[in-house]
Amino acid sequence: MNQLGVVRRNIERADRSATEALGKLGSATVHEAMGRVGLLKPYMRPIYADQMVSGSAVTVLLHPGDNWMMHVVAEQIQPGDIVVAAITAECTDGYFGDLLATSFMARGARALVIDAGVRDVRVLKEMGFPVWSKLISAKGCIKSTLGSVNIPVICAGALVNPGDVIVADDDGVVVVPAADAVRVAEVASKREALEEEKRAKLASGVLGLDMYNMRGPLDAAGLRYID
Amino acid sequence: MNQLGVVRRNIERADRSATEALGKLGSATVHEAMGRVGLLKPYMRPIYADQMVSGSAVTVLLHPGDNWMMHVVAEQIQPGDIVVAAITAECTDGYFGDLLATSFMARGARALVIDAGVRDVRVLKEMGFPVWSKLISAKGCIKSTLGSVNIPVICAGALVNPGDVIVADDDGVVVVPAADAVRVAEVASKREALEEEKRAKLASGVLGLDMYNMRGPLDAAGLRYID
Amino acid sequence: MNQLGVVRRNIERADRSATEALGKLGSATVHEAMGRVGLLKPYMRPIYADQMVSGSAVTVLLHPGDNWMMHVVAEQIQPGDIVVAAITAECTDGYFGDLLATSFMARGARALVIDAGVRDVRVLKEMGFPVWSKLISAKGCIKSTLGSVNIPVICAGALVNPGDVIVADDDGVVVVPAADAVRVAEVASKREALEEEKRAKLASGVLGLDMYNMRGPLDAAGLRYID
Amino acid sequence: MNQLGVVRRNIERADRSATEALGKLGSATVHEAMGRVGLLKPYMRPIYADQMVSGSAVTVLLHPGDNWMMHVVAEQIQPGDIVVAAITAECTDGYFGDLLATSFMARGARALVIDAGVRDVRVLKEMGFPVWSKLISAKGCIKSTLGSVNIPVICAGALVNPGDVIVADDDGVVVVPAADAVRVAEVASKREALEEEKRAKLASGVLGLDMYNMRGPLDAAGLRYID
Amino acid sequence: MNQLGVVRRNIERADRSATEALGKLGSATVHEAMGRVGLLKPYMRPIYADQMVSGSAVTVLLHPGDNWMMHVVAEQIQPGDIVVAAITAECTDGYFGDLLATSFMARGARALVIDAGVRDVRVLKEMGFPVWSKLISAKGCIKSTLGSVNIPVICAGALVNPGDVIVADDDGVVVVPAADAVRVAEVASKREALEEEKRAKLASGVLGLDMYNMRGPLDAAGLRYID
Amino acid sequence: MNQLGVVRRNIERADRSATEALGKLGSATVHEAMGRVGLLKPYMRPIYADQMVSGSAVTVLLHPGDNWMMHVVAEQIQPGDIVVAAITAECTDGYFGDLLATSFMARGARALVIDAGVRDVRVLKEMGFPVWSKLISAKGCIKSTLGSVNIPVICAGALVNPGDVIVADDDGVVVVPAADAVRVAEVASKREALEEEKRAKLASGVLGLDMYNMRGPLDAAGLRYID
Repeated sequence: MNQLGVVRRNIERADRSATEALGKLGSATVHEAMGRVGLLKPYMRPIYADQMVSGSAVTVLLHPGDNWMMHVVAEQIQPGDIVVAAITAECTDGYFGDLLATSFMARGARALVIDAGVRDVRVLKEMGFPVWSKLISAKGCIKSTLGSVNIPVICAGALVNPGDVIVADDDGVVVVPAADAVRVAEVASKREALEEEKRAKLASGVLGLDMYNMRGPLDAAGLRYID
Repeated sequence: MNQLGVVRRNIERADRSATEALGKLGSATVHEAMGRVGLLKPYMRPIYADQMVSGSAVTVLLHPGDNWMMHVVAEQIQPGDIVVAAITAECTDGYFGDLLATSFMARGARALVIDAGVRDVRVLKEMGFPVWSKLISAKGCIKSTLGSVNIPVICAGALVNPGDVIVADDDGVVVVPAADAVRVAEVASKREALEEEKRAKLASGVLGLDMYNMRGPLDAAGLRYID
Repeated sequence: MNQLGVVRRNIERADRSATEALGKLGSATVHEAMGRVGLLKPYMRPIYADQMVSGSAVTVLLHPGDNWMMHVVAEQIQPGDIVVAAITAECTDGYFGDLLATSFMARGARALVIDAGVRDVRVLKEMGFPVWSKLISAKGCIKSTLGSVNIPVICAGALVNPGDVIVADDDGVVVVPAADAVRVAEVASKREALEEEKRAKLASGVLGLDMYNMRGPLDAAGLRYID
Repeated sequence: MNQLGVVRRNIERADRSATEALGKLGSATVHEAMGRVGLLKPYMRPIYADQMVSGSAVTVLLHPGDNWMMHVVAEQIQPGDIVVAAITAECTDGYFGDLLATSFMARGARALVIDAGVRDVRVLKEMGFPVWSKLISAKGCIKSTLGSVNIPVICAGALVNPGDVIVADDDGVVVVPAADAVRVAEVASKREALEEEKRAKLASGVLGLDMYNMRGPLDAAGLRYID
Repeated sequence: MNQLGVVRRNIERADRSATEALGKLGSATVHEAMGRVGLLKPYMRPIYADQMVSGSAVTVLLHPGDNWMMHVVAEQIQPGDIVVAAITAECTDGYFGDLLATSFMARGARALVIDAGVRDVRVLKEMGFPVWSKLISAKGCIKSTLGSVNIPVICAGALVNPGDVIVADDDGVVVVPAADAVRVAEVASKREALEEEKRAKLASGVLGLDMYNMRGPLDAAGLRYID
Repeated sequence: MNQLGVVRRNIERADRSATEALGKLGSATVHEAMGRVGLLKPYMRPIYADQMVSGSAVTVLLHPGDNWMMHVVAEQIQPGDIVVAAITAECTDGYFGDLLATSFMARGARALVIDAGVRDVRVLKEMGFPVWSKLISAKGCIKSTLGSVNIPVICAGALVNPGDVIVADDDGVVVVPAADAVRVAEVASKREALEEEKRAKLASGVLGLDMYNMRGPLDAAGLRYID
């Protein structure tokens, strides 16, 4: 965590097909399949709606008000990656705009997840480059202090190792450790399959109370109905 | 307030036609007609824009991280109701997603107002089920502890009794006590009628200073014009 | 700052053509050209997206929960102005709705920037009157206490003098002192011109590391690449 | 909730000896005995430490930035009362200082609980008048708009009826409905008695795992020990 | 506001005796005398209690995470000054600790007011150097980017010009423009003198309702008493 | 990170004498020696002032509103340990009070660091058991869901592995990886030694500008002095 000034070039990315599968399942389903861990704080919001992506984490640790390492991380991006940017202290500056997005897209990045601000959001939307961030700010950064690339980082309260799977949509951002990706994708797919059936039942008017056999446990817990 | 583990089945809902009328007037007008009380805290925001609903409150009190009672409240929904969910402490979890929404819609619910998080927001938007919430979070809940249904609750700083009228739109959420619904609808309608005329005058260039005869009072209060 | 109860009628507005030019460049570019000062706090957000405006500041200082001076400032609006509203303490009330917007538009106002709440946001969007605010709230205001018009105000952490240029878009709101408008517009335009070229290079795959000649300085600072 | 401009003179106060007993037990124990409801939001903090009080609620509803009704409520105070002040919208102003405290103390008030700011806190501490508030602010208030006294209010997310018991200490503020005061005092006293014994056991090195017989349930839930 | 990289050496300090007088009156009284303007946001809190100071503002504008200019401003301190530090964007870093405090005290500074974090707070308390700050943080700063000294700054939402009077105590921080210091000190002194008499009356049981003759205006406003 | 329901019994604790040394140096000095990483978010505050501790981290991961695992972690405490408690989502409940503190102290724990609330703070202070927490709340917890003990956790934005050194004082909380403890203690001690000399120089009136030879670099960066 404390290796400042280091760029790791060779990282092992999570299984590609599991990564794709997780992206189609969405953050809520994946988070359940993980056992309800791995969610970034819910203040991380997409800068525009209706996005759903997954990819391999390429990580970068930056200092408050300094986005120098954004240019360093750009070189480490491979097609299908998602850049995950953490800051060593809370910062509201705009670390990323349309120029960096142009570079990231040229490298094949699918998205940026950043625990700070971004800018040029109208243009980013036109370019179709999705970003999940803490906020939006027009304020730019200096380029003065070294951080690191592809080290483990804490982003919005979650540990992200380079190569982990990132799943991001309108509900938020989830990180799946690379070693768990295949297993979680299987669990999540099964969960999703079961949900289709449940959805149909509920739509027909069956109550969750009956479908999940909750009446007994509720009664045992002491629930009383009064008129 | 402290009857945990209770479900009240028979509640008296506010006058239906007043409820409909209040929904068309919108939260700002209704709030004025109420004497500027009854507004839920402004952090309650719609998960998608351009919604305007009203309905009878069916209330549910839940514990942090536990959405068991959401299934219990579903059974108490009647067509035209809006579920109002309060939590016994602050919580950022996602208590509600597309499965529960499917069930709520099958029961005739018009909306959910919840002082916590929701998820599956992209799907909820596609389904056309409006939600006003404190935030969005992919994190799900356990089903372990009893709360109550159709008791008075404090939701986002406002007291909501079962059967009260809920008016919700892009400006926020207002609660009108069932006993006041008809009277408030009348006051609010008159207020709205007057606003049409004022709007036309202001659009033609008449100043509020003149239309509201404010120049005298401002002068009396000591307003000075300088060049 | 402390002249309550004063309305200044004659203010000197910034150069009109510089004002227009700054609006086309956007808040991020203008903020950079300013030397990274003049940005209002990033909690100031547009009530609807895809807006980009500039204009001369007409300022108003109000008290918590009191929007009386909104009617006083309306009279001082000239076509092309943007009203900048500051409050003497933090307040979440809705100071501004469709009636005031009708009046402001009739006077030629381009936008409102307010460090508090607004309401009727669905209608404001239909009317095409953009607002940057701290929040949205249905709660209205009383009309009881004098504030001032066209005095220097602190709005969301930035000093705004009457006549200053306001540039607002989806990235936030920047204020440019009237005396600096022409110079900043020139600096920002040059900056923007350079960005076009950079954008093309980055899109073609050239890295910022090379384009900005960062490899040397990074190496000098001690950056280490590991495998 | 919406009877603005009303002062109720005769309110029924909770049983005096239960009120005293609850104050000695403290907010955490009382809150448990209530079934974990009735706690004001934890942002309510004492302005100085090591206070522990209880009393009958005398309520006041005020408007943002307006403390006129503080003088009205003063007349309704009886010895042993605690004034509970709610605001119709969020406000950071200082509603209360040493002059009002002098008046409240002369009337026999034991404390103030206010969902807004107070000032003169150094003097209040010297006077020994405890206050639980949202914040501290030197900003004063106007006296312009009617609120109400001794109506039900929502203070920091909790419903307080006039005459309810308020228990406040360094852990926060709890409200006990007047009708429940005797019963809750009994439940809480028993709970407290049991805690003494537990405390001694735990101090001697007995683990909660054993004292509460948790090992079986933890094992049943699937807890695994690894080395 | 935007002159980065400038140090103004000669500033005109407010009248010394008015400065001392204002410090004895305290922030709440001075703020009232100012007409309720000039208060820094109430999130500015003393790092330890029971302090009451006044002095001439020496201002410094810093960048996020960079405290280089703290050393530059030290040289400009004269005995009786209070350093007022503003940051160009929100930052939670600790800009100031015991070494800088040692230097500031050696120069005769009375206090620091900073819209960011400080550290070594236990030692600062032992040294008797009072600080009003946004927060406390152990995180240090780099020394890389120029800011300015003795330019007008916005600190915690208030405009501070070099030489202005700063009044700070447990209620918060108020700034009095240098040109107004003598007048405000007189107004505030008179106000304070009147308060003594009021305090005695209220302590004797006279109600504010009677002392301020509020019963008539309350009745005229429609206040109703019920039993 | 996602092994819920696991208790690791044998953990390797950091070097004891380095741990003690780090505690005497304090969080700010240690954080600097770490290269400015490892600091928990500054919202983590001591429940009472003037504390300074260090110890080996014993970690526990809990669910919102559920403190069952607090009893499980108690058994794993060894003399000199500090319990570090993380929650799977944000929660304001009081997870810890005087009974658990009695148990923790009986086991030899030196402190608790928890990213949630605690209660019984007056008694904890009397007992002399220091706690760093996000907030204080009287609300208790249920005992229903498994978490884990002695797994890596993210607490207030920092990764803590079991056995890491925790350094906590009035400036905040820093975590030092066990493997780095000896090295960091050495670096920090040297840093501290240098500071003594600097302190003396600054106290004698030498400016940081001169002591750190900053005048040249400031001049090179373009700093201008004006009168």
